[in-house]
Amino acid sequence: MPISYTRARDLARRLSRGQSVDQLSQRLKPVVESERALSPRVPGQGDWSAAAHAERIAFLERKGLQLPALAGRSGAPDPASLQGNIEGYIGMTSIPTGLVGPLRINGLHASGDYYVPLATSEGALVASYDRGARLISLAGGASTITTNEQVQRAPGFVFETVAQASLFAVWAVAEFDRFHEVAATRTRHGQLLDLMTHIEGNHVYLIFAFYTGDAAGQNMVTFCTAAICADILERTPIAPTSWFLESNMSGDKKATALSFFQTRGRNAIAEVLIDRALFEQRMHTTPERMAEYWRMSFIGGVQTGSIGVSGHISNGIAALFLATGQDAACISEASVGITRMEVADGGGLYAAVTLPNLILGTVGGGTALPTARECLRILDCDGADRAARLAEICAAVTLAGELSIVAALCSGDFARAHATLGRKQEPRA
Amino acid sequence: MPISYTRARDLARRLSRGQSVDQLSQRLKPVVESERALSPRVPGQGDWSAAAHAERIAFLERKGLQLPALAGRSGAPDPASLQGNIEGYIGMTSIPTGLVGPLRINGLHASGDYYVPLATSEGALVASYDRGARLISLAGGASTITTNEQVQRAPGFVFETVAQASLFAVWAVAEFDRFHEVAATRTRHGQLLDLMTHIEGNHVYLIFAFYTGDAAGQNMVTFCTAAICADILERTPIAPTSWFLESNMSGDKKATALSFFQTRGRNAIAEVLIDRALFEQRMHTTPERMAEYWRMSFIGGVQTGSIGVSGHISNGIAALFLATGQDAACISEASVGITRMEVADGGGLYAAVTLPNLILGTVGGGTALPTARECLRILDCDGADRAARLAEICAAVTLAGELSIVAALCSGDFARAHATLGRKQEPRA
Amino acid sequence: MPISYTRARDLARRLSRGQSVDQLSQRLKPVVESERALSPRVPGQGDWSAAAHAERIAFLERKGLQLPALAGRSGAPDPASLQGNIEGYIGMTSIPTGLVGPLRINGLHASGDYYVPLATSEGALVASYDRGARLISLAGGASTITTNEQVQRAPGFVFETVAQASLFAVWAVAEFDRFHEVAATRTRHGQLLDLMTHIEGNHVYLIFAFYTGDAAGQNMVTFCTAAICADILERTPIAPTSWFLESNMSGDKKATALSFFQTRGRNAIAEVLIDRALFEQRMHTTPERMAEYWRMSFIGGVQTGSIGVSGHISNGIAALFLATGQDAACISEASVGITRMEVADGGGLYAAVTLPNLILGTVGGGTALPTARECLRILDCDGADRAARLAEICAAVTLAGELSIVAALCSGDFARAHATLGRKQEPRA
Amino acid sequence: MPISYTRARDLARRLSRGQSVDQLSQRLKPVVESERALSPRVPGQGDWSAAAHAERIAFLERKGLQLPALAGRSGAPDPASLQGNIEGYIGMTSIPTGLVGPLRINGLHASGDYYVPLATSEGALVASYDRGARLISLAGGASTITTNEQVQRAPGFVFETVAQASLFAVWAVAEFDRFHEVAATRTRHGQLLDLMTHIEGNHVYLIFAFYTGDAAGQNMVTFCTAAICADILERTPIAPTSWFLESNMSGDKKATALSFFQTRGRNAIAEVLIDRALFEQRMHTTPERMAEYWRMSFIGGVQTGSIGVSGHISNGIAALFLATGQDAACISEASVGITRMEVADGGGLYAAVTLPNLILGTVGGGTALPTARECLRILDCDGADRAARLAEICAAVTLAGELSIVAALCSGDFARAHATLGRKQEPRA
Repeated sequence: MPISYTRARDLARRLSRGQSVDQLSQRLKPVVESERALSPRVPGQGDWSAAAHAERIAFLERKGLQLPALAGRSGAPDPASLQGNIEGYIGMTSIPTGLVGPLRINGLHASGDYYVPLATSEGALVASYDRGARLISLAGGASTITTNEQVQRAPGFVFETVAQASLFAVWAVAEFDRFHEVAATRTRHGQLLDLMTHIEGNHVYLIFAFYTGDAAGQNMVTFCTAAICADILERTPIAPTSWFLESNMSGDKKATALSFFQTRGRNAIAEVLIDRALFEQRMHTTPERMAEYWRMSFIGGVQTGSIGVSGHISNGIAALFLATGQDAACISEASVGITRMEVADGGGLYAAVTLPNLILGTVGGGTALPTARECLRILDCDGADRAARLAEICAAVTLAGELSIVAALCSGDFARAHATLGRKQEPRA
Repeated sequence: MPISYTRARDLARRLSRGQSVDQLSQRLKPVVESERALSPRVPGQGDWSAAAHAERIAFLERKGLQLPALAGRSGAPDPASLQGNIEGYIGMTSIPTGLVGPLRINGLHASGDYYVPLATSEGALVASYDRGARLISLAGGASTITTNEQVQRAPGFVFETVAQASLFAVWAVAEFDRFHEVAATRTRHGQLLDLMTHIEGNHVYLIFAFYTGDAAGQNMVTFCTAAICADILERTPIAPTSWFLESNMSGDKKATALSFFQTRGRNAIAEVLIDRALFEQRMHTTPERMAEYWRMSFIGGVQTGSIGVSGHISNGIAALFLATGQDAACISEASVGITRMEVADGGGLYAAVTLPNLILGTVGGGTALPTARECLRILDCDGADRAARLAEICAAVTLAGELSIVAALCSGDFARAHATLGRKQEPRA
Repeated sequence: MPISYTRARDLARRLSRGQSVDQLSQRLKPVVESERALSPRVPGQGDWSAAAHAERIAFLERKGLQLPALAGRSGAPDPASLQGNIEGYIGMTSIPTGLVGPLRINGLHASGDYYVPLATSEGALVASYDRGARLISLAGGASTITTNEQVQRAPGFVFETVAQASLFAVWAVAEFDRFHEVAATRTRHGQLLDLMTHIEGNHVYLIFAFYTGDAAGQNMVTFCTAAICADILERTPIAPTSWFLESNMSGDKKATALSFFQTRGRNAIAEVLIDRALFEQRMHTTPERMAEYWRMSFIGGVQTGSIGVSGHISNGIAALFLATGQDAACISEASVGITRMEVADGGGLYAAVTLPNLILGTVGGGTALPTARECLRILDCDGADRAARLAEICAAVTLAGELSIVAALCSGDFARAHATLGRKQEPRA
Repeated sequence: MPISYTRARDLARRLSRGQSVDQLSQRLKPVVESERALSPRVPGQGDWSAAAHAERIAFLERKGLQLPALAGRSGAPDPASLQGNIEGYIGMTSIPTGLVGPLRINGLHASGDYYVPLATSEGALVASYDRGARLISLAGGASTITTNEQVQRAPGFVFETVAQASLFAVWAVAEFDRFHEVAATRTRHGQLLDLMTHIEGNHVYLIFAFYTGDAAGQNMVTFCTAAICADILERTPIAPTSWFLESNMSGDKKATALSFFQTRGRNAIAEVLIDRALFEQRMHTTPERMAEYWRMSFIGGVQTGSIGVSGHISNGIAALFLATGQDAACISEASVGITRMEVADGGGLYAAVTLPNLILGTVGGGTALPTARECLRILDCDGADRAARLAEICAAVTLAGELSIVAALCSGDFARAHATLGRKQEPRA
């Protein structure tokens, strides 16, 4: 996160879905196959025939899902339906989409065996994530949680002197309750949560943090902040010489250390504890070697100066974001996170992924586009009150991907998997 | 970059397409409308009717382009054709795609008036980039250049002691020529360019940098490095206790300070000098205010701890990457860059974008997918010897986007544009 | 900063020393020589004779200061007096100390014409800072302000699962008031200000932020946090499997992006507006060239991946920290900051330095050592209720240094100054 | 590092002091007490009496060292002798200095049992480092190595267009040999090693890297680069519109990701392998707990966005830099590094410190000051051909400090040690 104690009630309220220590622990604990059978695997893995494709579509439609757009039965959309999503429309870019699953999740908001659509053109990616998902599921599933959630917009104000700047900052923070009300006139679903001030010389940056409901929320925070700024300019006792609605401190659409600390979007965590025998049997390597790799690669990541350190989180994030109609530009921020792997007491493997910048939504933006809506339905994530669930699925999916790629690097399968699945027929790249 | 002087010949060779100082300067200099008329604008901007859509398709097809996939006339693909791109195929995710242009570019590899397909679901994005493209074109076009180009893969080796580690490092760097030969057995188009060593305690990280031709090249560098590692393990005088094909120092699919310095993929720069009168007339703000915004927002970005500082580069990168079949996970790294704006001598606006991590290709990966291939053709970027051109187009497109968004923030149009184009009909977000 | 609105009252209370907008603005506004004559310059600049040294000592002693230790009249200290500062004592390391001034400051806590002792062995440093101080003073002085102040200690707790970790975090933040009381049993001068939680997988990091009065406070926060942790372990409903008093999230003695955002120690800002004629006459360059340098060097700093961007802040910080008995290890964090220079409306030069990590004190640590105490007295900063003043002096001094070095780089004097003052007699380095 | 293969010969030549794999491994391997008795401990630890002080001085002087300045027998210096180090001289700031040792080092450049003077006012620091030094020594000593060494200076050049900028860059890199000659006219001891170019829009940054012999070298690289720039301006085919001798890309006196990667100053590594029984007996904790702490604190450091991740390296660096006359402002960069701890095969503890930014010297700057010269002699590091040795001692000393502090945090002794040694008599801080 980190979040201030004054914001603790939000976290507490969110976690209270589990009511008590025992109940939350119960909700998040692994459920192995002997307790509840795993849902069937996606049919026809490793088969690129039209029949296998049809079988997979049928498999999903038997669950009551309608998938005309994904299945290619719905024809080209009416351009008028795309107003609000595109200008100068010339057509639809098509991205191949595969299905992974089941992925068992025992989370605060996500719970059950999920089938996960991933849109990508990188061969081997879906197969790799599916391998990780199977491992997690056989281990009883990933425990997931969503902690903090907020989206920022950060206007900037220029003054003549630092004296004016600091007095303006003092005035502004005291107006928080008023700003909260102003924001409420512009949104039904969101609310102003926090206001941070930053003074640099005679510059004042105000960082407004909003709860944006089930929307990714960038437009919502823009409109609310515009209204707040109008209010500020009308009432401020110290007029700025200049001001801008966004000063580049919101972290919008870029990886930043600030967002990594503070959460931008949703902060979701997924962890899994995998029994040694299960792990070794399926992944052809050992928890010790995974831990050794984690250590070396974590130091490697630090040495590159990355923000957060992980394996290939962006692969899973990108594929899930594209499939579910998220803003692809946010892949740059949403991919920031921490992956950890260690040998657990008892000799198994403990692995966790922490993703503090999951800017995503289940309403608004591209989520109503035909294929996105179908993919959200496959995940039981369409519509209201589902965004935290989608965030937890993101965390569990990336955990699957991290486990699979690291195991491949440890067992020596990495290059071979890409040689097999990542290209068509050329003997040499 | 930075690049070492020993690699200078590569840069020099690349720039020699312009032959001499005078010729390169000539090739990159602005060409205003009075010298060469601008190509016509994309028809039907601001019109979401089916007729306008058809008119835009016809506009492109009159240029000899065939666009059945984008136009929605080609039906669902044969799943078998997707082997190498996807597993567990269930269908195609569709992303709305709009057209921007013309965007005049006077570059080392890109030259002419381009129409640029952008795939996104963010309303207002295409319109905003189109506005920036028009400004650049009226100013005579963006000057673009591609400097460095390389893709890394970084295996890690663990030894018992730092003595062994350092002796291994010394041995390895002396084997460069041999490694170059080994790599050549695995690729026709690529070649090993450089090898950097990094010792941390008893860990040795070897960072191999390859030229990957017109492919994004991640698989190529994996296969080549796997072959080099096999050679290392066979011949090394000091055996590692453990090793991994990738140690997280390659920067693959994440924003890193190291890649930002060193180039990962292609390093492209675009700049434009805009006459004051033209600028003020079209953007409703002044070069001085743009420079003031740049200063405040650049400091703002520094204060968030971002890698590189820019506005919303990721929007343009994501939209162009999706349209042209690039790896969407690479948006996380490709969006890193520097945007600069200043008042030029003479009172106009100077603006530049430097993008050092453009991992992209015009062959391989998703570039052969039907809609991607059509979009690459619109850009005259399909096939061999086109990747540097695509990189320069990326730089010019993001420059257009930076100019447009910053001007909107300076003139006060930012929130209004999103309210108009970014949503359908809801009165409140 | 940034600071949350809930912490705003602290900032407001601190700024209320100026009572009102008008009064604070009045207190911080420049005072040119015609309004109040500048104090005399340090005598004997450019003279290394014993007589000049004696004259400088006499100059200070005429102000009622006693300087036996600096003047070399006090002999070796009794080792027993150094208990608490050193073990295995063998003697005193001696660092040459020079005097800069007067430096006019119009600040919230510092106000007047200061003479500043700087301890360094880098020739040209004192002369350069003196040049900058003179420029500032002739311009009417630097306006300074101290905004936020806090010192962190960050214990870490390990749990079996993320469920336990998050429930512990929820419990802990709700105990803030209790922790505040526990801390109060261990310190008279400090108090617990804030508690931030950070969950990564099954790890919980608690970041306690304290006000530490006039002490740098690292020991105080250690003792208070140890007491809080004892209380936690006694009462927590969820026992950690392991815990550590410090988890490396406090930012202690290192440059971190987190401290740069959040303040560690004191956050002080200094600014000055310099009339064009005065500037050009004394610095042999123009405000435009300073602004051009700022822009290029600021981008340069961003390209190196530094935390904050400035010129040579660490020179002034190190010299002032050594002279005044601060912890030299904290130079690594205290040197983080932002320097800004721009052409002001009216054609003058605006310059500001923002230093958010000034870990310093006027009591405790090395501040009672003989020469440190004398230097603190020269600054009117010895004892209680002086730490914020010292912080503002730090900001003003570094502003002087930034102005001087950048002007030297702009006018071409940089290498020459070092050649003249930075070495003794060797013709070649 | 990393260093390019083209620079490999430098590393190889440096390591060739060990001639062969076997010989280097032999030189760096641990030497336990049964093979060679440890030198006696510093007398009178824990005794602050004048007698104990005198005993320690006598202990050192019996080794043939003369220590009048440290011992307080030499009186105040002649101010004239300080020309080149200070201006406006008012006296000497005195910093308490303690002795640690013996610290056994088996290194490429340092070899033997060292007594280490540390200047600090932080109580408990010397005792803590002494505890770590004893642990290392009993384990047979730290293995140390110096790999890369270079100091940068980075002039910046502004052009009208990116075309001119890139052509200038191409021209400049081709002039490397000439620049090497020009540099040679300004220094006997240094030489130009590398030149990296960086183009951002129409800006060109040239990063010159020099070998600076036994000097820290900032002045040397300034003078050499000034000469090279004069040569550039005289001969360049494309004249810049503006240029600056330093563009903030050298990393001078600040922590930067670029220097962390590339080495600035010397890159030294120290490692030690400690037998489990020895470790547990002396440190009251286990290798497993140390590894657990390392993992949690390393992730903690990543979450703060620090450059490199370590414990309190800056404490040791600052204390050793002050004692030996180094530039205290460089503490900000020299403190950057990586600390690693893990359970070794066999159950012992493996620990390593990698310090890539050791800007230090044994000649020039403050090294000739009386107490500095004495401290350098204690370390057998005064004069020529000793800087690499001092760098390795730095690495071994910080390794001692890291082991001691982490063990204290693991065993629960951290707060208690500071309560005992870190303050005089006050019951409450």
